[in-house]
Amino acid sequence: MRILLKNITILPMTSPKEIIEKGYVVINGSLIQSVGEGEPPAGDYEKVIDGTNYLVMPGLINTHTHAGMSLLRSYADDLPLMEWLETKIWPMEDRLTGDDMYWGALLAIIEMIKSGTTTFTDMYFYMDRVAQAVEETGIRAVLSRGMVGVGSENQLAIDQSRQFVRDWQGGAQGRITVILGPHAPYTCPPDYLKQVVALAKETGTGINIHVAETLDEINTIDRDYGMSPVALLEKTGVFEVPVIAAHCVHVSDEDIAIMKKYGVGVAHNPESNMKLASGIAPVPRMLEAGLAVGLGTDGTSSNNNLDMIQETRTCALLHKVNSMDPTVLPAEQALSLATTGGAQVLRLEKEIGRLAPGYKADMILINLDQPHMTPRYDLMANLVYAGQASDVDTVIIDGNIVMENRQLQTIDEEKVLRQCRDIAQRLVQSDKA
Amino acid sequence: MRILLKNITILPMTSPKEIIEKGYVVINGSLIQSVGEGEPPAGDYEKVIDGTNYLVMPGLINTHTHAGMSLLRSYADDLPLMEWLETKIWPMEDRLTGDDMYWGALLAIIEMIKSGTTTFTDMYFYMDRVAQAVEETGIRAVLSRGMVGVGSENQLAIDQSRQFVRDWQGGAQGRITVILGPHAPYTCPPDYLKQVVALAKETGTGINIHVAETLDEINTIDRDYGMSPVALLEKTGVFEVPVIAAHCVHVSDEDIAIMKKYGVGVAHNPESNMKLASGIAPVPRMLEAGLAVGLGTDGTSSNNNLDMIQETRTCALLHKVNSMDPTVLPAEQALSLATTGGAQVLRLEKEIGRLAPGYKADMILINLDQPHMTPRYDLMANLVYAGQASDVDTVIIDGNIVMENRQLQTIDEEKVLRQCRDIAQRLVQSDKA
Repeated sequence: MRILLKNITILPMTSPKEIIEKGYVVINGSLIQSVGEGEPPAGDYEKVIDGTNYLVMPGLINTHTHAGMSLLRSYADDLPLMEWLETKIWPMEDRLTGDDMYWGALLAIIEMIKSGTTTFTDMYFYMDRVAQAVEETGIRAVLSRGMVGVGSENQLAIDQSRQFVRDWQGGAQGRITVILGPHAPYTCPPDYLKQVVALAKETGTGINIHVAETLDEINTIDRDYGMSPVALLEKTGVFEVPVIAAHCVHVSDEDIAIMKKYGVGVAHNPESNMKLASGIAPVPRMLEAGLAVGLGTDGTSSNNNLDMIQETRTCALLHKVNSMDPTVLPAEQALSLATTGGAQVLRLEKEIGRLAPGYKADMILINLDQPHMTPRYDLMANLVYAGQASDVDTVIIDGNIVMENRQLQTIDEEKVLRQCRDIAQRLVQSDKA
Repeated sequence: MRILLKNITILPMTSPKEIIEKGYVVINGSLIQSVGEGEPPAGDYEKVIDGTNYLVMPGLINTHTHAGMSLLRSYADDLPLMEWLETKIWPMEDRLTGDDMYWGALLAIIEMIKSGTTTFTDMYFYMDRVAQAVEETGIRAVLSRGMVGVGSENQLAIDQSRQFVRDWQGGAQGRITVILGPHAPYTCPPDYLKQVVALAKETGTGINIHVAETLDEINTIDRDYGMSPVALLEKTGVFEVPVIAAHCVHVSDEDIAIMKKYGVGVAHNPESNMKLASGIAPVPRMLEAGLAVGLGTDGTSSNNNLDMIQETRTCALLHKVNSMDPTVLPAEQALSLATTGGAQVLRLEKEIGRLAPGYKADMILINLDQPHMTPRYDLMANLVYAGQASDVDTVIIDGNIVMENRQLQTIDEEKVLRQCRDIAQRLVQSDKA
């Protein structure tokens, strides 16, 4: 389909502060054909959107979440980490079926689209059902089947991951990328990680792993191996393949240097790290060192939302106060983490994260005619410091309009909410039984 | 007017975790007549609202802002504090007229009502024009004319404050409370503060003052007086009248003990303190000591929004990570700061902040039928950790419906936005001239 956006303010994210005040975007099929200032080129368009009072920018990229966990949102909060996991989250997860995961993923995708996310990175289980939800809804995703190296199912996880790559790599018209998901250094011993790396090399995929999330992890790995989680992963050979390292809260300058050497991308999850009291990742130091850093929400059990506009704001605010320096993470840099930075972390920087000819047509239209974004001295500051999920009006992914005027085009929202409420009721009843 | 809300979920905020799953609220004139479970009492109601899928709770209380600063939203960000004030904010403030202040206050009130705030505390200038905006829109406010003790206008500020009390104390059908607004210990020397205290005693009003916001202030006051700002205010006699102390970022246990002794209320502004890199107020210690603590957004130049739902979430997240303890500031406590805590700080705890018979009919209806609040295991966690300003559907203040189904009833929103855009354009043009 050929779509024209005209009379629209454009944030292409191709250079730090570039804004086109009144311009056009031409979409041809799944790709952006042209972006420019002033009058659009003449042509046959199947759909023309007048963007007066709207901003178009690249869709936001969530580099770390667990979509199916939306079924557990606000089930248990404000608890110490291990009590939360052992008495609340894990028993509930044991009760989740493949069907549940499908509906839970749909619920997450609804929330993501409605808050401007066009690509998400997932690690969880029953991932074929998540892939099905991605295919049906039109969103873009980097999916990994969670793998735990200890316990009886570790070989099953390897086999299922291999099968998942075969079944879904490049699936959903190319919108799905499959990678491997070893959970963390403290749940996947080196011998197991070596098997995962071998599988990654065999299948030509990357790896998605939690790294240095808590002080507990640092202490455990130091006790067992006498080094940091990052050093352990290097030694184990994990960084020989492309890696998305989620969290990286407790990393030293040496760890950062190792990650830089191998081009490891960091998925920074400020709100989850705050809510679980894990700590504050040294993001300014990572950026100074030239690491690729993207933003993630983590799962809704530890956030409890998937709103990337909010996550971007929290990122900017948190690192200012943590550095005691108000010039840290200015609005335009925070926005770049949520777009181009995320694309780089996912190794999709030549396809998504900016509005430029040849890039995937993944973009969001934001309604600027809002009291909380008035007046408009600085568009990026308004967006980052005052923007709301509900300002996202229209979402285009891979050239398809998946939300228009806040109406989802590919999902029966009411049905999904009803199903998820029923599932939650069943889960709670079996919890009490 | 007699209004009935029925079939509605109620968060009365009368005890920590109380929720009425399906109940009613009866409003008679400006007051709440009854709140209960099950079927409502029979009676003649001029308006009946069916609250199925809605939550009603007390309106949020913003204990510290500068409403007129909405005209300067995102005019200057990500700068060092003094450069920000001296080269950007102060020159712009010099250009603001009384008419500007009226429109700026309206813009702020629009944003506040649309995000569920029913009472705000203001300190700025041309306050009679802010009072006019409050009167016309139906919101409740605690207003103070900002006073600076150094400079030529210090006596004018005293005179105008006295006049402002005379003109507006109890104004707008009792919705306006006037207090005095000496800016801060570092801008108001002790001799001046003594004059302000004398005026407070003469007029029977309280005081609204910035206290211990930055390390700079701590150093300045220590250099000049050899003590902390809080100790200086005690010594000067400021705490002999009711005081709202904004920020209190850098306070010791001794400072907290002094504030407790005098019943000083704290207006905590987590997002402003993060954005300006002022620091993190020791709120858990204040609460442990039994201080009254409310939440504030500060002005939109340093936030840059007036969204109290977001501020509540940020407060809960920030103190968890700052304490490295996920059990700190649980959802219900964060919510209490935004309601009952704020009321206590403003000395209005017998009138607002909870839904109970005899209290002012200040309440907000929240649409719970949202993907980001599905499923519903824990209403308060959903609200605090996932709620959005746009979930606020209807707002009632002093028994009047000021917003219904997100439509403002007392303000011409489009006209205010247009006027504010025009003012901003004028301000920027004179900036360049």
